[in-house]
Amino acid sequence: MQAASLSPFTAHRVPIDLGERSYDITIGKALLADPMTWDAVPAAASALIVTNATVAPLYAPALASALQTRHKAIYSVILPDGEEHKNWQTLNLVFDALLENACDRRTVIYALGGGVVGDMAGFAAASYMRGIPFVQVPTTLLAQVDSSVGGKTAINHPLGKNMIGAFYQPVLVVCDQDTLATLPARELSAGLAEVIKYGPIADMDFLDWIEANLEDLMAREPAALAHAVRRSCEIKAAVVGQDEREAGLREILNFGHTFGHAIEAGLGYGKWLHGEAVGCGMVMAMHLSNRLGLVSPALVDRVTTLVRGAGLPVVGPRLGPDRYLALMQVDKKARAGGIRFVVIDAPGSASVRSAPDAMVREVIEACCT
Amino acid sequence: MQAASLSPFTAHRVPIDLGERSYDITIGKALLADPMTWDAVPAAASALIVTNATVAPLYAPALASALQTRHKAIYSVILPDGEEHKNWQTLNLVFDALLENACDRRTVIYALGGGVVGDMAGFAAASYMRGIPFVQVPTTLLAQVDSSVGGKTAINHPLGKNMIGAFYQPVLVVCDQDTLATLPARELSAGLAEVIKYGPIADMDFLDWIEANLEDLMAREPAALAHAVRRSCEIKAAVVGQDEREAGLREILNFGHTFGHAIEAGLGYGKWLHGEAVGCGMVMAMHLSNRLGLVSPALVDRVTTLVRGAGLPVVGPRLGPDRYLALMQVDKKARAGGIRFVVIDAPGSASVRSAPDAMVREVIEACCT
Repeated sequence: MQAASLSPFTAHRVPIDLGERSYDITIGKALLADPMTWDAVPAAASALIVTNATVAPLYAPALASALQTRHKAIYSVILPDGEEHKNWQTLNLVFDALLENACDRRTVIYALGGGVVGDMAGFAAASYMRGIPFVQVPTTLLAQVDSSVGGKTAINHPLGKNMIGAFYQPVLVVCDQDTLATLPARELSAGLAEVIKYGPIADMDFLDWIEANLEDLMAREPAALAHAVRRSCEIKAAVVGQDEREAGLREILNFGHTFGHAIEAGLGYGKWLHGEAVGCGMVMAMHLSNRLGLVSPALVDRVTTLVRGAGLPVVGPRLGPDRYLALMQVDKKARAGGIRFVVIDAPGSASVRSAPDAMVREVIEACCT
Repeated sequence: MQAASLSPFTAHRVPIDLGERSYDITIGKALLADPMTWDAVPAAASALIVTNATVAPLYAPALASALQTRHKAIYSVILPDGEEHKNWQTLNLVFDALLENACDRRTVIYALGGGVVGDMAGFAAASYMRGIPFVQVPTTLLAQVDSSVGGKTAINHPLGKNMIGAFYQPVLVVCDQDTLATLPARELSAGLAEVIKYGPIADMDFLDWIEANLEDLMAREPAALAHAVRRSCEIKAAVVGQDEREAGLREILNFGHTFGHAIEAGLGYGKWLHGEAVGCGMVMAMHLSNRLGLVSPALVDRVTTLVRGAGLPVVGPRLGPDRYLALMQVDKKARAGGIRFVVIDAPGSASVRSAPDAMVREVIEACCT
């Protein structure tokens, strides 16, 4: 569990075991420009790199160059950057590019960017001709530890986040640690929110490790980041391998997300980063777990301190309890019987349950000042 | 194989064997208004009936009434009728209805209508919250024998038909023969195109039967229609059971569709009905099969006579060979290496192959005058 045991210069594979939809996550340095990185991708005459205006100038030329021996024709489409563009209009730019270039069922989509690019490119791959192969090339910490793994793809609807999408697995995920060097500090912190998440829900040893190595992580020490990505992917792989379509267990990966989505929707998508909302949402979910009598105030404080230390907000926006409840009601985790929250049952263990409205209001009042 | 052996008053089940995604097709009379018809549908607090402006007044009240004991809340959304509305804008009306009514992951969608309603409701069900259950209630012959079975869902893109969609299986298909009584004659013929299709590609005995019973079918004799639906579904079930995601064999179900889609796209979607274009497309595909040396002129004539007898066009629109080729090139059956056609290898047997452009031009010249 020590970072020192993993050289950041040796590529590491984390297998995702999903039967015929199994694939590997490759984690390492200098992967993107290396043609051998892409050996597991099915042969195809054409490929489409889906990226955004921020990432394209940094990494698209190197990726296209590394793919030249694999695909005769390599097209690209550059989407506007930001969660507020994760909608049908932007998705349609990908379909336009596929059709204008006469791409077929074998064409491979490469999603080069953060979570928004991965979600949209993945849903485009799931839907174009009812499914074509795609590769995740996450360039943000958040995408490397969470959104690029497990096959959730989606776009937003004006009435709710990630409401339209598919479970659709990539054929390969490549996490090149070098791409994290250009990440804005705010996005590094947002990614750490999803890293921290894996501690309370699944692995208290990992929580210890994050606390002990937070300074190195914030300083982008490559060995520390590589270990954080690897362990996060291992935990996520274990959960997704047991519950690909989120029939039950997988929901625990949404720890902090019920409150977090309400924050994002309430402020307008894009105001807070997804990871920032999740960071604050985890603090709120810890408070709820405590009020439900499941965890000690000490663990609430510990997670709060870690979230704050990662440069993330721990106090929610003052939308008012009514607005929070209304926003959470429409969240996809809602079902007949009330809003469903991921709570911590005990250190390193999570479950999904509803909570009395009055208690949720108390949490909102206490955490959003 | 005699129609007399099947009473149209006894509901008949055709199982679709797809492992954990298996389901039944129920074929019979007076099914829609019978609460017992829906026993296999998963329990859910809410349901959304997706239908169109033509079908809604005829059958939506009876369906809603039959479902009252199963679902506490039954919502409906009425789409504009016609292939030209099979697009994202119309699909979004379904998402709006789902979200405005706070529908959740258990909500059941009922697709009540023809192929367009089924394709759109199915893709909405596949995509809403990454997948909710849906039931196909096809009210046209075409939908009963083809589009409601097998899990293909899609919408059109301005640059191509059915380009955006999903393989997504319903939990139940209910073919109520009574709904065919209100079908316009032109749509009955369009449905017969897909019935005829199953003969040359899979079952020459069935082709004999269709020829012998064409008059009864055109007169909507219930026993004849019920047998045609049942045998068509059995053949389709056998093919889809072997190749759910159209990796190979399933493509033979697209007999007549490569030319047919070009006709539809070339004239503008909605000018010819899908079944009309497929009817004419089958005649063209028979000519191509003959020119490839695979079938006799006698079989070409036989299929042509049957298509004509079913009230379908056997002469294509004069778009010109260049336009046909350009339209077929972008069709999803196209791959590197040329346009792919389903051809008849021998009576009752089909395969997929490319053909020399010059030969395809000859077929177009001969069939589109």
